[in-house]
Amino acid sequence: MAGQTPPRVHDVPIGLHATGTRTETDSLGAIEVPADHYWGAQTQRSLIHFSIGDDRMPKAVYHAYGYIKKAAALVNAETGRLPRWKADLIARVADEAARGDLDGEFPLYVWQTGSGTQTNMNVNEVIANRAIQLLGGRLGGKDPIHPNDHVNMGQSSNDTFVAAMHIAAVRAVTGRLLPALKRLRGAAESKSHEWEHVVKIGRTHLEDATPLTVGQEWSGYAAQLADGIDHLAATLPGLYRLALGGTAVGTGLNAPAGFGEKVTARIAGLTGLPFTTAPNPFAAQASCDALVRVSAAVRALTAPLFKFANDMRWLGSGPRAGLHELVLPSNEPGSSIMPGKVNPTQAEAMLMVAVQVVGNDTAVAVAGAEGNFELNAFRPVIIANVLHSVRILADMVDHFRTYLVEGVTLDMDRLTEDVERSIMLVTALSPVIGYDRAAAIAHRALDEGLTLREAALRSGVSESLYDSVVVPERLTHPGVPGSRSGHDPYGGTRGA
Amino acid sequence: MAGQTPPRVHDVPIGLHATGTRTETDSLGAIEVPADHYWGAQTQRSLIHFSIGDDRMPKAVYHAYGYIKKAAALVNAETGRLPRWKADLIARVADEAARGDLDGEFPLYVWQTGSGTQTNMNVNEVIANRAIQLLGGRLGGKDPIHPNDHVNMGQSSNDTFVAAMHIAAVRAVTGRLLPALKRLRGAAESKSHEWEHVVKIGRTHLEDATPLTVGQEWSGYAAQLADGIDHLAATLPGLYRLALGGTAVGTGLNAPAGFGEKVTARIAGLTGLPFTTAPNPFAAQASCDALVRVSAAVRALTAPLFKFANDMRWLGSGPRAGLHELVLPSNEPGSSIMPGKVNPTQAEAMLMVAVQVVGNDTAVAVAGAEGNFELNAFRPVIIANVLHSVRILADMVDHFRTYLVEGVTLDMDRLTEDVERSIMLVTALSPVIGYDRAAAIAHRALDEGLTLREAALRSGVSESLYDSVVVPERLTHPGVPGSRSGHDPYGGTRGA
Amino acid sequence: MAGQTPPRVHDVPIGLHATGTRTETDSLGAIEVPADHYWGAQTQRSLIHFSIGDDRMPKAVYHAYGYIKKAAALVNAETGRLPRWKADLIARVADEAARGDLDGEFPLYVWQTGSGTQTNMNVNEVIANRAIQLLGGRLGGKDPIHPNDHVNMGQSSNDTFVAAMHIAAVRAVTGRLLPALKRLRGAAESKSHEWEHVVKIGRTHLEDATPLTVGQEWSGYAAQLADGIDHLAATLPGLYRLALGGTAVGTGLNAPAGFGEKVTARIAGLTGLPFTTAPNPFAAQASCDALVRVSAAVRALTAPLFKFANDMRWLGSGPRAGLHELVLPSNEPGSSIMPGKVNPTQAEAMLMVAVQVVGNDTAVAVAGAEGNFELNAFRPVIIANVLHSVRILADMVDHFRTYLVEGVTLDMDRLTEDVERSIMLVTALSPVIGYDRAAAIAHRALDEGLTLREAALRSGVSESLYDSVVVPERLTHPGVPGSRSGHDPYGGTRGA
Amino acid sequence: MAGQTPPRVHDVPIGLHATGTRTETDSLGAIEVPADHYWGAQTQRSLIHFSIGDDRMPKAVYHAYGYIKKAAALVNAETGRLPRWKADLIARVADEAARGDLDGEFPLYVWQTGSGTQTNMNVNEVIANRAIQLLGGRLGGKDPIHPNDHVNMGQSSNDTFVAAMHIAAVRAVTGRLLPALKRLRGAAESKSHEWEHVVKIGRTHLEDATPLTVGQEWSGYAAQLADGIDHLAATLPGLYRLALGGTAVGTGLNAPAGFGEKVTARIAGLTGLPFTTAPNPFAAQASCDALVRVSAAVRALTAPLFKFANDMRWLGSGPRAGLHELVLPSNEPGSSIMPGKVNPTQAEAMLMVAVQVVGNDTAVAVAGAEGNFELNAFRPVIIANVLHSVRILADMVDHFRTYLVEGVTLDMDRLTEDVERSIMLVTALSPVIGYDRAAAIAHRALDEGLTLREAALRSGVSESLYDSVVVPERLTHPGVPGSRSGHDPYGGTRGA
Repeated sequence: MAGQTPPRVHDVPIGLHATGTRTETDSLGAIEVPADHYWGAQTQRSLIHFSIGDDRMPKAVYHAYGYIKKAAALVNAETGRLPRWKADLIARVADEAARGDLDGEFPLYVWQTGSGTQTNMNVNEVIANRAIQLLGGRLGGKDPIHPNDHVNMGQSSNDTFVAAMHIAAVRAVTGRLLPALKRLRGAAESKSHEWEHVVKIGRTHLEDATPLTVGQEWSGYAAQLADGIDHLAATLPGLYRLALGGTAVGTGLNAPAGFGEKVTARIAGLTGLPFTTAPNPFAAQASCDALVRVSAAVRALTAPLFKFANDMRWLGSGPRAGLHELVLPSNEPGSSIMPGKVNPTQAEAMLMVAVQVVGNDTAVAVAGAEGNFELNAFRPVIIANVLHSVRILADMVDHFRTYLVEGVTLDMDRLTEDVERSIMLVTALSPVIGYDRAAAIAHRALDEGLTLREAALRSGVSESLYDSVVVPERLTHPGVPGSRSGHDPYGGTRGA
Repeated sequence: MAGQTPPRVHDVPIGLHATGTRTETDSLGAIEVPADHYWGAQTQRSLIHFSIGDDRMPKAVYHAYGYIKKAAALVNAETGRLPRWKADLIARVADEAARGDLDGEFPLYVWQTGSGTQTNMNVNEVIANRAIQLLGGRLGGKDPIHPNDHVNMGQSSNDTFVAAMHIAAVRAVTGRLLPALKRLRGAAESKSHEWEHVVKIGRTHLEDATPLTVGQEWSGYAAQLADGIDHLAATLPGLYRLALGGTAVGTGLNAPAGFGEKVTARIAGLTGLPFTTAPNPFAAQASCDALVRVSAAVRALTAPLFKFANDMRWLGSGPRAGLHELVLPSNEPGSSIMPGKVNPTQAEAMLMVAVQVVGNDTAVAVAGAEGNFELNAFRPVIIANVLHSVRILADMVDHFRTYLVEGVTLDMDRLTEDVERSIMLVTALSPVIGYDRAAAIAHRALDEGLTLREAALRSGVSESLYDSVVVPERLTHPGVPGSRSGHDPYGGTRGA
Repeated sequence: MAGQTPPRVHDVPIGLHATGTRTETDSLGAIEVPADHYWGAQTQRSLIHFSIGDDRMPKAVYHAYGYIKKAAALVNAETGRLPRWKADLIARVADEAARGDLDGEFPLYVWQTGSGTQTNMNVNEVIANRAIQLLGGRLGGKDPIHPNDHVNMGQSSNDTFVAAMHIAAVRAVTGRLLPALKRLRGAAESKSHEWEHVVKIGRTHLEDATPLTVGQEWSGYAAQLADGIDHLAATLPGLYRLALGGTAVGTGLNAPAGFGEKVTARIAGLTGLPFTTAPNPFAAQASCDALVRVSAAVRALTAPLFKFANDMRWLGSGPRAGLHELVLPSNEPGSSIMPGKVNPTQAEAMLMVAVQVVGNDTAVAVAGAEGNFELNAFRPVIIANVLHSVRILADMVDHFRTYLVEGVTLDMDRLTEDVERSIMLVTALSPVIGYDRAAAIAHRALDEGLTLREAALRSGVSESLYDSVVVPERLTHPGVPGSRSGHDPYGGTRGA
Repeated sequence: MAGQTPPRVHDVPIGLHATGTRTETDSLGAIEVPADHYWGAQTQRSLIHFSIGDDRMPKAVYHAYGYIKKAAALVNAETGRLPRWKADLIARVADEAARGDLDGEFPLYVWQTGSGTQTNMNVNEVIANRAIQLLGGRLGGKDPIHPNDHVNMGQSSNDTFVAAMHIAAVRAVTGRLLPALKRLRGAAESKSHEWEHVVKIGRTHLEDATPLTVGQEWSGYAAQLADGIDHLAATLPGLYRLALGGTAVGTGLNAPAGFGEKVTARIAGLTGLPFTTAPNPFAAQASCDALVRVSAAVRALTAPLFKFANDMRWLGSGPRAGLHELVLPSNEPGSSIMPGKVNPTQAEAMLMVAVQVVGNDTAVAVAGAEGNFELNAFRPVIIANVLHSVRILADMVDHFRTYLVEGVTLDMDRLTEDVERSIMLVTALSPVIGYDRAAAIAHRALDEGLTLREAALRSGVSESLYDSVVVPERLTHPGVPGSRSGHDPYGGTRGA
């Protein structure tokens, strides 16, 4: 091999200008493929056998494969198994794949073989034919670049596909979802500071309760998000472990010693992300456990987000017959029949996205349990759902922040009025006059339509006692000074 | 109105050849929209505020809206509220929408307002502008066809969107899923007949059990499907009830008496499907219960389909170290590294689709419970998931049948060998010699590595007894003649 | 057999007064069991190997087995396979099991063999030993009544357990859940009639919308329930089909021709329920599809119930800073710290029960798909969840009705005030003045803090037009007379 | 207060020997309670209003409350708000509750108020009356120990119940589930070492693949468990944060500054677990996010456990017509009709438990999202499901290990035979002769019924090449020496 003179590489732009079909072959024989596409026989067979719905394998998986194929080729050259020029050529085309320039060549469906083999072969075939094009060779000839022998050298779908899933998921979570969540947490914190001293009536069981400040309420949204962010981030180390090197069943057959480690190190370098080799290749290939955990952590984020959105729409309800503490921005007319109506549409979209993420996660959980022996053959449904959830949640969080949270204002009149009319401030009297007497006052206020002050005075509470104890502002910070002062009220990784 | 001379309608093909933007207005003011599209201000606002992920409102919803807008316009003319020429023009454009010719004008996302109002307004705006184009008028001028006052006359998103959901779901279920399921049931029945007399070892708990015929096993697949088909079909009457006529909150404000009934009757005529008016408009608009039930019925079908696919891949496992009763068709090379490998890819895809349907249904179930007061504002996520499930399941069922079920053959050698080696035929001796003696024989065969016959004879069973009782073929039809002869073994709606 | 003189049956009450242990045997050998219990070796082994959590196989399954064992014994006698006196004795003890008198003898856990065999053997062993006791024989001697050869004659766990599941589920659904649901639907209808003419502001997206009557709103709750009841009832025919007669794998080995039909007919007679033989025994034993469908229908009921409870708690929120259209009954003090607080506790319990039912159904859906070959070996988890859901939902529905729905009253002042302050009645003007002018009026009212009337008049609407069009009461029945008069507004099976 | 002489405490054992009823009161008035129980009016009202199903609030929640009430009382004394003798008395009774000695006094149902207030009041009432008994006072008199004013001093259900949930969950996870999982991981590792050199055929897609050792396969089970254990352990810090000190809505009204921190520190001391105060009390009380994450982590463990159990039952299938690589222990007779049958019952129970955990987690996920404003009122359903899942999974894991994993042995004959017959060892030839030629050899072997060796030689592969490359043992460690040697193949927290 070493003595072979490398052929000249032509700088041909991506694209095939042929028409009609071209014959490609695989171990099952020949098949016609569209002449204007790079893919080969196995891709074509998959297109025929699996044209199911509109769900395509996410392009992010192919971009991840770009890194893998490049890294593998370079390591194969390094260890003398592949001529340098072949490796360089594969790496060049793999770069095109990683950048998304070949996205149009990856048409396969999610619903395919459970190992993702057809997607791996799609990548192998496209890279081989694109490389052959660059050499001026015959597409489909598999020479001098063979999809299996060269592009797939030292690899199997069983180790590379799960690695591509990890890479794609890591990039989506770290590149999109976590930043979006941190921005939303920041926006909630800003509002919390802005409204730090605005007193409002608290509500438990939806019923009037003791007061707190709007800022305190919003600090809760920020803190819930902070914890969710930390939890999601804590699942990333599992994704950083790549199964590469295990080949068919985890033993590494047909890969040299250390191959997986070297390829993984290359990928870490290419992506700038701390990928390492999975310590147990058998577990790494037979399961998708790390992705199941990531999916669960993404789903866990729907709890704070669902509550945040739900609170927003309830607090913004009205304008006349609702709670209407918040004034939501008017982004669009709300009704085709009711003129002037404004609805909490961003909150509704968030609630729906959250519900979708719960559904997607159910699919991932069930699929994740269905590994058998040396392979989990439910991989495509897992990665499709994880990437779908991450994508819509990230986008939604940004829209929710931009078009709802950042634009929301307070209805100060309503806030004040509700505090003034509330009965539950009676709680502050309870330590002084006892729970039972306090309860009687509350019931009296309600039964007789009195304010709390009226009911208290009529029940024998002195004016001076009442006025010294029932001070709404003070009830929101009863333990001051000092209480909890050492804590960061927003929790989580603020420095992160 | 009646005296007005109808303007001339020009026969302009669909398409706008302007460039740049056009100013459109709604109650929030003016906004620029792409000049080469028909949509108006509200669609454009939605595109900006809700560009979340890649999930678009399914086109089937817009096709359904085509029927609704046409029917409403014609009824409005009939009752004298809308000039005939306006109604005819709206109807003409609505036909274009129903046929899919305007699909490119419906770009909105699933994640939008929970009522679907933006999609309704998208339809209203596109129809109005397209109508105006046909009249040679000014796009965006809302004159002489106004999106709200004319296209939406007598309607609200709250009654029309849920009606469009029903229409779209009915068409998908009756047009695609049920026929595909019936074809698969038929294919299973054919195999059942073909293999009616081929004896195989039964398995319970995955462990060897008493024999049955391959045809009997396959009759079970067919019967499970038949019951699932019946159950799904039984949910359709709920979908046939349309909420039309209730307008904003179910009272029918701004619609004349009988409007909903007349529009619904028109839609029934247009679609050839037995739509009727929902008896209680408040329930019909505040819930999506009928769709929740359809989703659950679709999900229930995953039970027989998951089992069918799972059995197929296990029974086809091997070829040397698996069960290998079935020889699965070789549709594609199975491995990028293991030459000659063939995998049960259609079965795997079916299993994954089933898992997705379970996940989708979870989303629908949660969303379906979240109605508040006069509206369930989780409609887009519900219809998107229902249509997604129906679509992928229908396609999958057809592929599974075509590329797996119809091509599967039997490994007769393996079938015979397994029956011969089995011990569990000892069950037939049990009524004669008692359970305890029979159990001892079975354990002996296993412990000493004997055939059942050897173990039985060595344990004192006479040769004549053994040979008269332990006849595999006969054990598969022990009650013959007569048993169950009156039943249709495939169950369900065979005549349907 | 025929010539044998039947031994004398002693009329011994249930109970064993021995202490310590007794030796029992099965095909794996001898084992000590508690001397004061009837169960035998296999039950004891199960107790040791499966003492997992606190979840016991529901007693309803054992009661159902009582019917099965009795019916089978009588048919076995009828066909001459079992001496009449043995059959009568088994039937007598089976009656004790069916009545619940032997409940203390059925201690096994849900988490056991997936076929339910251990529960079937528990029944067989207890019946055999109790019968032996009645004959004055030696417990554990299996003579003259043998658990397998006699009590289990013509049966397998594989056909009987799934039959017992069906019988238990049918009885729970028809005996408890459906009646409770019908009572709640009736209570909602009563309220609907009571409040037929009370006008309230409607709400869509939680935001103020056009008015309707409280009675109309409640008619929606009733109608949703009616549809859910119909849907659940429609799944019962699947449960009425029993797998009996199929024995081990569906072929009916060791059962005479017609055995299943005869036993099923007996059970129908004993229970008064229309049980029939499953047309395809292979499907009936390899799947739990009928129960999956019932579970899904029960889950579908959570949609109307969740909304009903959710609406109730929101409409009852306050008393001062919430919606407070409804005054909920004060069943208990609401807070340990806030005196006088009353919370919507029945609604909260309903919401939680609904959530549990959704979770239980997820388990059933996954388990239902996991059949393999001739058996679904996830039966115990399926029946435990179905019966759990049915039980808690039935009880909850009754409590919700008794302690919340029937006691709720209206806050008439709040209802009137909200209608008067609402802006959305502008919708009624829209057909007269156009959507765009109407929208401008609504925005003006909101921006300038005006009533709708003020804003309309200031915007040029004449007083006479306004007062003739914007009449809240009339807006709730705009299409009167005649609209929808032919429909039953509550839908569903009112006569049922 | 300080001058009061403490009354004498009598050493009365737990128990009330009265009959009939006793009158107890709360703010709603008087009610009769059973005279032989300590509970008061609010407990009794809950028993009446919420007798729904058989699900009782888990006793572990009450034990946790024992710690909370003791710690709160002692801190209240320390800060001078409660006389020392009252605090000591409350602490003494709280110890009884923590130890489980008062379990019979906590009869309430899961389905109750969503805040858990009724359970908190049950604890308050029982402690007060038991304390009064010890003082020789009048039960129900609330003097000198009042359930609200003294036992609940400085507390609300809203902060204490969620704290009790955390304490109960931590104790269940750390005390039962994690140890059980570590024991199972250890058992899998032992088997992995024991079978380190036993070669078997690998399987991907259930189809024959390249070989590995049984030990390698089992190292995968151990590694999957190790990762799952780590992940679950990583969710504990969230549970260690207690909401104490926030009282009604998080502001800490009626609790002195620093109260929550001091009480939490006491609880940490009492339990030996590192509890701290939740940094943001509003988030801590308005959400159950930490428990949602724990539930998700428990559910994530079902992926490795489901696969482990599933592999076991498939690998043990047969004995004659299955894979039968493993010989499963015979714990019990497997069939009521098929003598001598042995089934993988522990594996089946594990699969069912896993499915239940998935269902429970769905309920938790939905409930966890449903917080509103200052409270998540779905707490009881959350803690009930979390504790249920932890309990059954812990027990199941121990049973699975004891009765299945530790007793399993290998069928060496079958293992050897399968390797010898396999065709997929052709993969080893692929790097030498190319994928395409290798594939042709594999197809030939299959089509002509040849061994791989026969097919290879007939296709021109030299005997020496074949015999030097296709050596099963070597193919299981192709990269030796050196590959992955630095890794711990079992991953995770081995040192933990």
